[in-house]
Amino acid sequence: MKITLIGNGKLGKHFYKVLISIGQIQLLEWVVRSEKECKTPEGILMTNKINQHEISDIYLLAVSDNSIKEVAKLPPNDSLVVHTSGAISLEEIGRDRAGVFYPIQTFSEESNINFSKIPIGIESKQIQDLIHLKKLTKLIGTKSFLINSSQREHLHLAAVLVNNFTNHLFVEADIICKQNNLSFDLLKPLLKETIEKLNNLSPEQSQTGPAIRNDSETISKHIKLITKNRLKEIYKVLTSAIQECND
Amino acid sequence: MKITLIGNGKLGKHFYKVLISIGQIQLLEWVVRSEKECKTPEGILMTNKINQHEISDIYLLAVSDNSIKEVAKLPPNDSLVVHTSGAISLEEIGRDRAGVFYPIQTFSEESNINFSKIPIGIESKQIQDLIHLKKLTKLIGTKSFLINSSQREHLHLAAVLVNNFTNHLFVEADIICKQNNLSFDLLKPLLKETIEKLNNLSPEQSQTGPAIRNDSETISKHIKLITKNRLKEIYKVLTSAIQECND
Repeated sequence: MKITLIGNGKLGKHFYKVLISIGQIQLLEWVVRSEKECKTPEGILMTNKINQHEISDIYLLAVSDNSIKEVAKLPPNDSLVVHTSGAISLEEIGRDRAGVFYPIQTFSEESNINFSKIPIGIESKQIQDLIHLKKLTKLIGTKSFLINSSQREHLHLAAVLVNNFTNHLFVEADIICKQNNLSFDLLKPLLKETIEKLNNLSPEQSQTGPAIRNDSETISKHIKLITKNRLKEIYKVLTSAIQECND
Repeated sequence: MKITLIGNGKLGKHFYKVLISIGQIQLLEWVVRSEKECKTPEGILMTNKINQHEISDIYLLAVSDNSIKEVAKLPPNDSLVVHTSGAISLEEIGRDRAGVFYPIQTFSEESNINFSKIPIGIESKQIQDLIHLKKLTKLIGTKSFLINSSQREHLHLAAVLVNNFTNHLFVEADIICKQNNLSFDLLKPLLKETIEKLNNLSPEQSQTGPAIRNDSETISKHIKLITKNRLKEIYKVLTSAIQECND
């Protein structure tokens, strides 16, 4: 299977690593924004031009959401262009053959990602192009599931809630720990249990704490302890939201 | 070591399970709000009266925050009363011998809790009572750390952020998944990575997503997708908070 990878941001770098690790995948080139052509240590051509002569089975776009539409125009006519974003609908891509390969994961530059554990949402304009997308997930060693653009946008929103927003709460907790000479590590078994609970209980069943107990004394104490207005706001709105769920 | 356990809510039940599992601990009785005395399957007396004759080394209070002050008055004079709450300061307990044994964990009735993995924050009015608290953590097989009441209140606040609020975001994500015929399980590898990332990166370094990228197009799309006003509010305030961190 021939692939051209486009983009070398965080996601692009993670895709590069996994693609070159699979024997049955031939990474034709890695298209990046750079002045000069060069070769990666693994011998892959890094270039800013897409080779229009040797056609890849998939042109895999790991570029920012607002570049997808433009970059999607560059691969050879009639080739299959596949983006990896949660937010861009397939209709927005002005090509006959277009698809989506959406990994439900968070990618930081320094983290080690095991692609074989990531569910991949796939979609394509032409039904027969699903074969390529399924083959790629199979080669990566993971499972794909069919998802339409509307479902994908909603799943992306859900992913923002459970990862981005959750992580911000960790940032705030980390600041509170530091200000009080406490190690954030003290919270790690709690974090682990927060996730592991969900193996047996639904999120709704897992809810504990002062908000769901309507423990107004503790809630007032906490609001007084918080020094940042923005965090007070977060505390209040999430407390109200938990209490409304319980009504 | 003789212990009297008071309270049979979620935390009380988990404490009961761990205390009866330890050979060197003698659970004298389990004091609960019930009309009739009875025995547990393990032969422990469940009663609503505290035995004033046989004194325990520790009277362990697993009762709601707003009952602690009252219940703390009931054990025999000069005995050591220890509460397990994150929010009640030691000064509020009107006894000479009082302590805190605060497990940094979330306790749902149906979850299996491994106490040996839970850090326990301990504090006592009399220095010599720390010996009893340290002995109890040792028997349970976990580690304790000294923490004063102010630090503990802040740690409890941090725990609310990383567990209660995080879990509410899971509740909202679960609802979005259900409304779109998607399984919440699709998000579980992402949840796992959200926590595992923190083994190598700080929460600040782990932040990803449209807010930190200032991807206003995706942010507007998400706000349009959200049907509940409260969730719109949560989305906006957390997005602003993430962006302010990045300023």
